[in-house]
Amino acid sequence: MFKKTLLAVSLAAATLSSASAFAVENVDLLIKNATVLTMNADKTVYDNGLVAIKENKIFAVTDGTDLKEYKAEKTIDADGDIVMPGLINTHTHVSMTVFRSMADDVPDRLHRYIFPLESKLVSRDMVRIGAQLGNVEMVKGGVTTYADMYYFEDEVAKTVDKIGMRAVLGETVIKFPVADAANADEGIKYAVNFIEEYKDHPRITPAFAPHAPYTNTTETLKKITELSLKYDVPVMIHLAESERENQVIAERSGGKSPVEYMADIGALTPNLVGAHVINVDDEDIALLKKHDVGVAHNMSANIKSAKGVSPALKMFDDGLRIGLGTDGPMSGNTISTMDEFNQVAKVHKLVNKDRAAMPPVKVIEMATIGAARALHMEDTIGSLEKGKLADIIVVDTKAPNMVPVYNPYSALVYSAYATNVKHTIVDGKVLMEDRNMLTVDEKAIHDEALAFADKVRQTVVESGEVVQ
Amino acid sequence: MFKKTLLAVSLAAATLSSASAFAVENVDLLIKNATVLTMNADKTVYDNGLVAIKENKIFAVTDGTDLKEYKAEKTIDADGDIVMPGLINTHTHVSMTVFRSMADDVPDRLHRYIFPLESKLVSRDMVRIGAQLGNVEMVKGGVTTYADMYYFEDEVAKTVDKIGMRAVLGETVIKFPVADAANADEGIKYAVNFIEEYKDHPRITPAFAPHAPYTNTTETLKKITELSLKYDVPVMIHLAESERENQVIAERSGGKSPVEYMADIGALTPNLVGAHVINVDDEDIALLKKHDVGVAHNMSANIKSAKGVSPALKMFDDGLRIGLGTDGPMSGNTISTMDEFNQVAKVHKLVNKDRAAMPPVKVIEMATIGAARALHMEDTIGSLEKGKLADIIVVDTKAPNMVPVYNPYSALVYSAYATNVKHTIVDGKVLMEDRNMLTVDEKAIHDEALAFADKVRQTVVESGEVVQ
Repeated sequence: MFKKTLLAVSLAAATLSSASAFAVENVDLLIKNATVLTMNADKTVYDNGLVAIKENKIFAVTDGTDLKEYKAEKTIDADGDIVMPGLINTHTHVSMTVFRSMADDVPDRLHRYIFPLESKLVSRDMVRIGAQLGNVEMVKGGVTTYADMYYFEDEVAKTVDKIGMRAVLGETVIKFPVADAANADEGIKYAVNFIEEYKDHPRITPAFAPHAPYTNTTETLKKITELSLKYDVPVMIHLAESERENQVIAERSGGKSPVEYMADIGALTPNLVGAHVINVDDEDIALLKKHDVGVAHNMSANIKSAKGVSPALKMFDDGLRIGLGTDGPMSGNTISTMDEFNQVAKVHKLVNKDRAAMPPVKVIEMATIGAARALHMEDTIGSLEKGKLADIIVVDTKAPNMVPVYNPYSALVYSAYATNVKHTIVDGKVLMEDRNMLTVDEKAIHDEALAFADKVRQTVVESGEVVQ
Repeated sequence: MFKKTLLAVSLAAATLSSASAFAVENVDLLIKNATVLTMNADKTVYDNGLVAIKENKIFAVTDGTDLKEYKAEKTIDADGDIVMPGLINTHTHVSMTVFRSMADDVPDRLHRYIFPLESKLVSRDMVRIGAQLGNVEMVKGGVTTYADMYYFEDEVAKTVDKIGMRAVLGETVIKFPVADAANADEGIKYAVNFIEEYKDHPRITPAFAPHAPYTNTTETLKKITELSLKYDVPVMIHLAESERENQVIAERSGGKSPVEYMADIGALTPNLVGAHVINVDDEDIALLKKHDVGVAHNMSANIKSAKGVSPALKMFDDGLRIGLGTDGPMSGNTISTMDEFNQVAKVHKLVNKDRAAMPPVKVIEMATIGAARALHMEDTIGSLEKGKLADIIVVDTKAPNMVPVYNPYSALVYSAYATNVKHTIVDGKVLMEDRNMLTVDEKAIHDEALAFADKVRQTVVESGEVVQ
């Protein structure tokens, strides 16, 4: 008995002294007093937890009882706020911010309006200026990684490198002349050069972005598939998005759906990420699953364009790799994934005639680890777990729209604004703190975007080309 | 010729000297350099306009060329930001903010969950605390007038009086025992007392709020109709909202729809405002129009509950009095009308399979002058016009999500967050300036709400009664 008591006492003493004595762990950044949504496999939530970061990685995620075991260079007291994985936007065209709020409701807008507008105005400058603005919008809205499809992606890459975000950047390949290529072959060359330049960047994954099955030839799609396997890079494509696509592909393939056609030509691979994926049936969904294709679900853009509602809930429940995307700022029109939450939850309830369909926890999964899966990046990002890259956001729960929080998933999905994001951390580095941008000059970016918008006005708005 | 020239010269001199000489108008508040959306009958927009306010009314709304003619006690330089009528939320239950994010996706939630919750927790304190919090949320989101249906509306009235908002407050009448009445007759007495107390308040319109046709008897509905005509006050009711309502009313009336039934018993009057109005056919819509009934369209709550999409676009196009509402914070879940914009525009496009349906300008009309019409208040609020009450908001166009603004209606509907509202003015008084609340202590209100939420947790969440 005596010995036992002695042992108990000495154990207690060890515990008490551990913080100051031998068990202190030096970390770079510590977030404490947090409602931590880990988004790990068990969906563990800590009410008063902590996240410790060493260099660019998560060193520990705990219930907070071990707080004294960490000594940090910098500590963020979350004061009960929500701490969660950074949001991953699986599909956008970031540079198009400079065209936002223009001709939103014109029928057949892509072909009648956007392609001609782009042929006049897309340039290296436009791509850089629009990307800078969009990056700021996303960091302020809690997006830490995004997947982009556009032209001059090397310009986007420079802005991503500077601001400190993570991105998958897909250089567009399309069969007609565009700003950075006269044809698809030139587009492929541009993409290969870009891939070779950026393939070893720690935060940027270069990729191919064939615009869509119907705007590329079978030969081009096959060539890109082959090259993507050779370079082991993603291929991002608009897939099963529009009636026009269905028609063109059916004519080309003897009645096949876009997904069947892509399977037939060998273009469905684990490197592929399909955006939209609206017009698919059960067989198409099975093909996407079989080939381990990622899917970007863009609710807001799809309903704004009246294209319809993707069977995203079925794809999620069937175990496909699927995450949320915003589409571009001429489509969405904002590019913070948080703006999708509410619409994703509600519209799936509406079309399924079931208020229990698409509960908030599924929406948050599709914005974090699900989105990471869609981009085949789930081993490194998408959840708060030891060893993963430190991409983390803190969401203010004191704003009047967020009070009270009985259920953090519900509060995020049904109440949060992108502006409720308080801090954004990527790769262990704080990019936004208390809503102030730390790595770029927000005012200068804003002014440059406004100056470009004046040029747009002079070019197309004042000439009367724009139908508003 | 000589005389003419002289005359021209002297006129020019008079114009030049008018600002400093005899034509200066003293006003209390001047908003200059504004993108003014007047929402008048012509939808006049001024790119660099001004709004001048004397006491609680709009004295002038101009293109800004007469800026020098005003001398103001206080001047707000909008610096190009959007200046528009304050938003009018035609339907909410403001006090329910304290229950927000609880059990959001439970089927048959009203009867299985909300009514029992309310019977335990609704009190004068709860109503006051929830209303205070909701008022702050709305003022910060640009809502200047709201229509409320709940219990202890005299408590809501005190909070509205204090913060300085405008409101139509409907005291609930329902056939089963509730916190402030044992039955419908007691509810009517409570309402009459409240109406007599507040009928001369400059910013508060007291009203009857029979919960719904199916939760009241025909006798009660007739009595309320009669009293509302006697006191000339509004009657607000949930109408044509649910399948359960359809069934109960069909059984009661020999197969009639809720709207037909209300018409038959004489309850459709110009004093009535129906909330939701989802399950209506063309005959019902014609009846609502014939009787000049107002309609509150609550898209967000209706799709979240999977109840369906109201034919609001048809009602608007048919010339009914219809405006946007948010429903309560257990339904919406936020109560700033701006959060509806995007969903209203997009879901009507989706269900009409037409991207041109429900363009932004209609959405903004339904949030301002249309909402004023729904509440029969269009003579005093809802647009920026000389002589109207000075309920005005300024919306920041410099936030990254709002850049650039080619079309202000599009920017508001597709891009704006409620947090982009910069200043809120009601009755000529600035209630929020640069996002700071000027008439109430936001921190104290927040802390009181959190303390009440702890009580809610102890009462129902920790006991396991809440299904999350």
